[in-house]
Amino acid sequence: MPQFLSTTDADFEQRFSAVLAAKREDSPDVDDVVSGIIADVRARGDVAVLELTAKFDRMQIDADQIRLSDAEIDAEIAKVSDEEQHALELAAERIRAYHTRQMPSDEMWTDPDGATLGWRWTPVSAAGLYVPGGLASYPSSVLMNAVPAKVAGVERLAMVVPTPDGIINPLVMMAARVAGVDEVYRIGGAQAVAALAYGTETIAPVDKITGPGNAFVAAAKRRVFGKVGIDMIAGPSEILVIADGDNDADWIALDLMSQAEHDESAQSLLITTDAAFGQAVADAVTVRLETLERREIAGASWRDFGAIITVRDLDEAARLCDRIAPEHLELCVADPEALSDKITHAGAIFLGQWTPEAIGDYVGGPNHVLPTARSARFSSGLSVLDFLKRTTLAKMSPEALRAIGPAAEVLATSESLEAHGLSVTARLRKLNG
Amino acid sequence: MPQFLSTTDADFEQRFSAVLAAKREDSPDVDDVVSGIIADVRARGDVAVLELTAKFDRMQIDADQIRLSDAEIDAEIAKVSDEEQHALELAAERIRAYHTRQMPSDEMWTDPDGATLGWRWTPVSAAGLYVPGGLASYPSSVLMNAVPAKVAGVERLAMVVPTPDGIINPLVMMAARVAGVDEVYRIGGAQAVAALAYGTETIAPVDKITGPGNAFVAAAKRRVFGKVGIDMIAGPSEILVIADGDNDADWIALDLMSQAEHDESAQSLLITTDAAFGQAVADAVTVRLETLERREIAGASWRDFGAIITVRDLDEAARLCDRIAPEHLELCVADPEALSDKITHAGAIFLGQWTPEAIGDYVGGPNHVLPTARSARFSSGLSVLDFLKRTTLAKMSPEALRAIGPAAEVLATSESLEAHGLSVTARLRKLNG
Repeated sequence: MPQFLSTTDADFEQRFSAVLAAKREDSPDVDDVVSGIIADVRARGDVAVLELTAKFDRMQIDADQIRLSDAEIDAEIAKVSDEEQHALELAAERIRAYHTRQMPSDEMWTDPDGATLGWRWTPVSAAGLYVPGGLASYPSSVLMNAVPAKVAGVERLAMVVPTPDGIINPLVMMAARVAGVDEVYRIGGAQAVAALAYGTETIAPVDKITGPGNAFVAAAKRRVFGKVGIDMIAGPSEILVIADGDNDADWIALDLMSQAEHDESAQSLLITTDAAFGQAVADAVTVRLETLERREIAGASWRDFGAIITVRDLDEAARLCDRIAPEHLELCVADPEALSDKITHAGAIFLGQWTPEAIGDYVGGPNHVLPTARSARFSSGLSVLDFLKRTTLAKMSPEALRAIGPAAEVLATSESLEAHGLSVTARLRKLNG
Repeated sequence: MPQFLSTTDADFEQRFSAVLAAKREDSPDVDDVVSGIIADVRARGDVAVLELTAKFDRMQIDADQIRLSDAEIDAEIAKVSDEEQHALELAAERIRAYHTRQMPSDEMWTDPDGATLGWRWTPVSAAGLYVPGGLASYPSSVLMNAVPAKVAGVERLAMVVPTPDGIINPLVMMAARVAGVDEVYRIGGAQAVAALAYGTETIAPVDKITGPGNAFVAAAKRRVFGKVGIDMIAGPSEILVIADGDNDADWIALDLMSQAEHDESAQSLLITTDAAFGQAVADAVTVRLETLERREIAGASWRDFGAIITVRDLDEAARLCDRIAPEHLELCVADPEALSDKITHAGAIFLGQWTPEAIGDYVGGPNHVLPTARSARFSSGLSVLDFLKRTTLAKMSPEALRAIGPAAEVLATSESLEAHGLSVTARLRKLNG
């Protein structure tokens, strides 16, 4: 059973803090191993990648097999049912439509001093997408990473996906095709991250790497950061549902379980204004856990990290929510917009009872790569901005330099940066002389 | 003397690659020391901070002296000349005007399926600003970090600045006041970063930490990343000037020296279509290096990392520029806008001969915190976006769920995430009677 808390309990603050602080991630220290793998791939390129793939994925392949041919991809895609293809295409289309609206615009203006200022956005030239193999190989994640990259204008999008024992997920190939991925490599682990960051004989280096992965992949991404850009390092998934008593307990139970089934370290929280409803949800979860395919994972997550918190009113719910800063937030209340306005920190908000979080995982349109572990306090989900960068622009007219140059001279002098000041002084002398 | 290269040289590619790959940073491995300091501050709070401050900054203070009082700040500010105050105020006003234009807008729309989608931006609640003490204590950096934070709407902005031997920089205090910094603490190093990230008895924790620092500060920021957000870890400064022969060699020499004087590891590069002009600039640098106050630093940077590259034409210059992805780029050519359009990777572009890079350091308006070490390929300078985060919003109408829910069910099934699918199925069942 999950924990039951109430803000009227004497020990609420203590227990709520414990829920917030729950150490859910067991991150094994794989940094030394990963550091060795990266050095090996930098030194020996394809040869190292092939050896590591033989070792970890039990696959003997040659360098010219690292990249999947179009024919191979076609053969995999042929295995996908029409129903699944259409679902992927609908998802891609909706994700594309949403992310296209995120495209920022370039600006340029001339201010009253005569200074022309602005910025422009340009795409990252080449991006790499890591896709896990095996159980966590999700075609939806391919769409959520690849579509924004292509919307941003990334010219070259290279995907790596391990295929342990040679097993390829046809839906992942279909998602890559639908999203416009340019190159697919059947490698994974830290060696794949190193190959994307530094390049090998067969894989040209990229500028940015995104996508989820295990502890080795996460450690490799941290290590290559700086050489290339990376997206966030995601932790286990989380959901907070805020619900009043006027909801179907089974729907809410399923929403909570749809996070819990991801991972034993996932966290599902319910805040409700109605203690009896909270109990009804707990009962509904118990019933669902009898039959769910992934009941062992979901049950462990719910038992170890789940909590049902009864609050006095929705204002209190909003305040607790901001302390949780949840990755996913469902507002199943009569006026979800009004409650949403009271909340500052959340990765994604799902408004009203007809918006289960699972819609956001697949077909809603917004990205499902979202900040975990309270990082919604300071970071955002994946977007086209992750595949763009901004160059600032400035052009002084002689008049503008005359107007604002003297202040730059003063500040340069006060910072003891003489050449900075002189670069302005020399120009002003010409202007004034 | 710097290196002279020409794209017509047989060994150009090799030598240019060497310029690109020059290892300029000597980052001492201070990670173990920093890890110990952070653990100590987490465990012992103010007591640890005070002991470390006594040790590193040679200052015996009490916990109630960690924060500067308004009266102390007033006393420091009183030492600033009117001229310097006005220069700081002009700079702050121009930085504020530029960054205000960066504020993104919230969006919300309903698509043809009846799904209401959008996003909204909210500020980080509390931010910490690291300001170095001693030689690298730059009031302009205070403005460049603090003004965007305040424009973004950060409610609580806490600044830490070490004051070794008790020496305070009055201009830094004035800049903090002008920019609207809320709290100032006289501590520095890894202990200050730890205090901001985890909080102590006297310093409440923040959500995001920005600002430059030495190797200890950089290592501490890397370590607390995840617990809080951080800005980029900046490397030594760089400038690339692309100039035709129709320029004043002394101006360009001063622009190159204004990066070189920052740091012996800084890099100043000139690409020119006119070899004779390149030689004239080299000669002008030699003359300036006889008298510049920071000639030892600037001279070492120029000697070790400077280069003058002659190209056949400006198209070639643009291609080389994209390989350099410079932090600062000056385009001193007849049509700087046309050349700018050919360039993809640069942190900030300064257009035309009346726009020395130093204008951008102080009063231009755009931020001077910019991506170094070729990271302009995938990242941007500091902006209001660094102090905002985006929450995505989604609301399905029953009709929208009916339209797109089935695709979510299909994808959930294909990913073996049963509860995801059931959370949609249960609702569709109700809808469909």
